[in-house]
Amino acid sequence: MAEFQSKIKTIEWIDTYSRMVDQTKFPYAFEYVEITNGQDMFNAIKTMIVRGAPAIGIAGAHGVVLYAQEGAKTISDKAEFISWLLKKADYMASARPTAVNLMWAVEKQKEIIKNSTSDIVGIIEELKINGKKLELEDIEINKKIGDYGAEVVPKGATILTHCNAGALATVGYGTALGVVRSAFANDPTVQVFADETRPRQQGARITTLELTMDGIPVTLITDGMCSYFMKKGMIDMVCVGADRIAANGDAANKIGTYTVAIAAKYHNIPFYVAAPLSTIDTSIKSGDEIVIEERSHDEVTHINGKSICADGVKVINPGFDVTPHELIAGIITEKGILRPDYTKSIAEAFKM
Amino acid sequence: MAEFQSKIKTIEWIDTYSRMVDQTKFPYAFEYVEITNGQDMFNAIKTMIVRGAPAIGIAGAHGVVLYAQEGAKTISDKAEFISWLLKKADYMASARPTAVNLMWAVEKQKEIIKNSTSDIVGIIEELKINGKKLELEDIEINKKIGDYGAEVVPKGATILTHCNAGALATVGYGTALGVVRSAFANDPTVQVFADETRPRQQGARITTLELTMDGIPVTLITDGMCSYFMKKGMIDMVCVGADRIAANGDAANKIGTYTVAIAAKYHNIPFYVAAPLSTIDTSIKSGDEIVIEERSHDEVTHINGKSICADGVKVINPGFDVTPHELIAGIITEKGILRPDYTKSIAEAFKM
Repeated sequence: MAEFQSKIKTIEWIDTYSRMVDQTKFPYAFEYVEITNGQDMFNAIKTMIVRGAPAIGIAGAHGVVLYAQEGAKTISDKAEFISWLLKKADYMASARPTAVNLMWAVEKQKEIIKNSTSDIVGIIEELKINGKKLELEDIEINKKIGDYGAEVVPKGATILTHCNAGALATVGYGTALGVVRSAFANDPTVQVFADETRPRQQGARITTLELTMDGIPVTLITDGMCSYFMKKGMIDMVCVGADRIAANGDAANKIGTYTVAIAAKYHNIPFYVAAPLSTIDTSIKSGDEIVIEERSHDEVTHINGKSICADGVKVINPGFDVTPHELIAGIITEKGILRPDYTKSIAEAFKM
Repeated sequence: MAEFQSKIKTIEWIDTYSRMVDQTKFPYAFEYVEITNGQDMFNAIKTMIVRGAPAIGIAGAHGVVLYAQEGAKTISDKAEFISWLLKKADYMASARPTAVNLMWAVEKQKEIIKNSTSDIVGIIEELKINGKKLELEDIEINKKIGDYGAEVVPKGATILTHCNAGALATVGYGTALGVVRSAFANDPTVQVFADETRPRQQGARITTLELTMDGIPVTLITDGMCSYFMKKGMIDMVCVGADRIAANGDAANKIGTYTVAIAAKYHNIPFYVAAPLSTIDTSIKSGDEIVIEERSHDEVTHINGKSICADGVKVINPGFDVTPHELIAGIITEKGILRPDYTKSIAEAFKM
């Protein structure tokens, strides 16, 4: 099998700081930003300079290293340092509520903080090494997801995706778009339809940009159009990412995903979710328990700083919705494609 | 029953010209424009200075009067005048292909041109009178639609609508929003959720504006959110307009409508289409025969003149989609609410 080489490295630890692509500048600029302290990382996650469940996991892990570096400047007692840093880690994990990868990656760092036998300097070193390890693992996991997913992509398929679950939502290969990359490497007739994904337009701003950079054909459509193209037989499968998946397979993802899943079901088009196991939160039974982030109303009422509606109109802006497991044909993970009954297949994947 | 008084008059014939609200300026300005010749009217329809199926019907009727006034300046022979004017009328009817009301209203004027026993001056006078008659009838018809529709609006209902089938899509009361107005007049706890309606954002730009002007509570949501709110039990019914309805009840309306209809079906929420009989084209058997206008790609790739995506991305921009009759709970017309089997109920409505 041919392997796809992506040009994109979304987030990377460099010696003493985290370097990331500033995703608020898309599609007008492709710029890197250096995050050198914990509070700036918290803000970068919250304001979506870095976004995408796996990428904000790595950002959270980096953020803990940044706080560790800061703490070491003023705190010399190890017990005090650990206590202070664990609080900062919890703060970092609270930057956004829906994606479980953030909590998961911060938890990995907290285990090191709690269990390390090293001194403060040694703890920082271990956190850096672990952050780098999570980074590299993310790409490896994504490539496995891509290769498993490619097996269910029909020859010459048009794949509809929503939001951006791509290289720019991860460290560098993508989950849903990892499936696209692996499929495209072996079949250059594969193409993507990208939902614009209002309100933040990640499909228009980010997915079209990263696929164009990597030479993969992409057609931009507005969110309401998906059913029109499905009915015309122009969509062969849907593949999206996820921010948190419950033990029963219910999957939270960017707002609008659930609508696409319903449309896919109505047209008998398979709807896949591509995500690492770290996105699966087996501590919750169903999607009903997933906290949905309510975001700023300006995201709905303004585009590029300009109002698009009447003054004073009411707005509700949920950042995510939950696609119930019965609409999902398969969950593509690094351990293979999980199929219904998800309660069973998810539990088995965690034992592998 | 209380009657709702709307402040809005979208299009009106004044002595020698047509005055209309310029809908390309929303939500930044509420300005009137005077259209004084046929070609300007053709352009106003094509560029959506006036839009909405019933409103462009009236605009087309006015456009024929404008051409008649122009023709009379240079043509003195009645037969020559009639032949010239019929060609101009056909040209006017071709400004947009999907909404049948345009063809319908122009046809009404053509009947006068062909059958009048008057001289040229008399023909112009008859065309003016007929244009004015269609204008006034449109409001009367809308009020009847509103009153019939209000009967199926539950107490305190939240009504989801897509695009703008309001006062600003008609002469002055609205079809789908006519139903809202009539319901609200008797139950001020009724409220509206308005889909943004990308790409042209008629929901955000126009529906929020006209409902706010008339004091009716409205919440703006993005197109992908509808299912989220439906699942939460926050939507009691869907009511939209139509641009053309086939003899079997299949209804063409603004792109994205079909997706909302599928979501409504999935959640067992009634989905209504509100439209005058002039929107029903009994000459076509099903929605498959409705021509779907393909519009400029800039509408998808640019908002307020600024690009929102990668350069060179592919785009397809169908202006409309067709909701199959099996997703429609009822078609609210001035002759009452038509129910399945639509082939039968539509045929009967035309006999009333």
